[in-house]
Amino acid sequence: MPLRTSWAKDACPIARGADVFGDPWAVLVLREVFIGNNRFDGIRTQLGIAESVLSNRLRRLVEAGILCLEPYISGGRPRNKYCLTSAGVDALSVLHAIAGWAQRNTAAPEGKLMRVICSLCGTDSAPGFLCASCGEQFELSTTSWDHPNAPGRVISLGKAETIENAEASRFSAAP
Amino acid sequence: MPLRTSWAKDACPIARGADVFGDPWAVLVLREVFIGNNRFDGIRTQLGIAESVLSNRLRRLVEAGILCLEPYISGGRPRNKYCLTSAGVDALSVLHAIAGWAQRNTAAPEGKLMRVICSLCGTDSAPGFLCASCGEQFELSTTSWDHPNAPGRVISLGKAETIENAEASRFSAAP
Repeated sequence: MPLRTSWAKDACPIARGADVFGDPWAVLVLREVFIGNNRFDGIRTQLGIAESVLSNRLRRLVEAGILCLEPYISGGRPRNKYCLTSAGVDALSVLHAIAGWAQRNTAAPEGKLMRVICSLCGTDSAPGFLCASCGEQFELSTTSWDHPNAPGRVISLGKAETIENAEASRFSAAP
Repeated sequence: MPLRTSWAKDACPIARGADVFGDPWAVLVLREVFIGNNRFDGIRTQLGIAESVLSNRLRRLVEAGILCLEPYISGGRPRNKYCLTSAGVDALSVLHAIAGWAQRNTAAPEGKLMRVICSLCGTDSAPGFLCASCGEQFELSTTSWDHPNAPGRVISLGKAETIENAEASRFSAAP
């Protein structure tokens, strides 16, 4: 790493966005933070990712202004958890676009589908930009996931920890 | 390559989608095909990408069922161009989500913005899922881009070459 020049200052917003989301681990780390799994050890355990890779991806997501470090004390030791900034909250649209495309165009093992539940109308639909029932845009506070990794356990994204309007932290992403 | 196990058969659609779009070069190659730049040499020149990297990404996009190889003759030699399958056409929603996020959350050099023009209402708006003016979903046939890489030159995506309902070709992606 890096395997290429940064595109963070490219004139094309597709390139600037690919600079962030064009990394499969970054996308899955974000998925974990959205469902409230926002501590280093918890993400590492869930994804089965090497510590160095996770540390690198968290650092890049912090530098991109998507995640913010929040210190806390555990067992008398200072630790960090990762919270969504406003830009991070806005990344729900990207995760839903990716999930929606995959659900429409790739085979789901054992036919298990991801459902997105809109609390405004109480209906579940497929991942996308809008609730297929009431037509409202999926927002963090009104969206839950029934996810193939934990079928039947509805996860409210509104419980994800956020720091609205936070500036990007530029600390390293240590455990 | 590969740097990790394939997630193409993962139960999570975010992981299956990240298997395709979680690669910055793949995203930019797709951008080029959407604007009609769908031949090996043309993409290589535009992106400044190494032949081996481009060949690899085209092969993966073909294997993922997003692009299809179409043979043609140039200078008496058989060549291939890359056309969007129906799953490829559907990827417009992902490109627009990524571009929209980046335009809302990252700085555009010299303030140059990407505009998306909806031919249904003739209005231009930011990249997203819906036309901000008429509320219709952006579709390939009704969408044009005014892109920072070629400002003032409106590119109709409806001219992108497509093969609807094509099965994924499983040939190698040679020039």
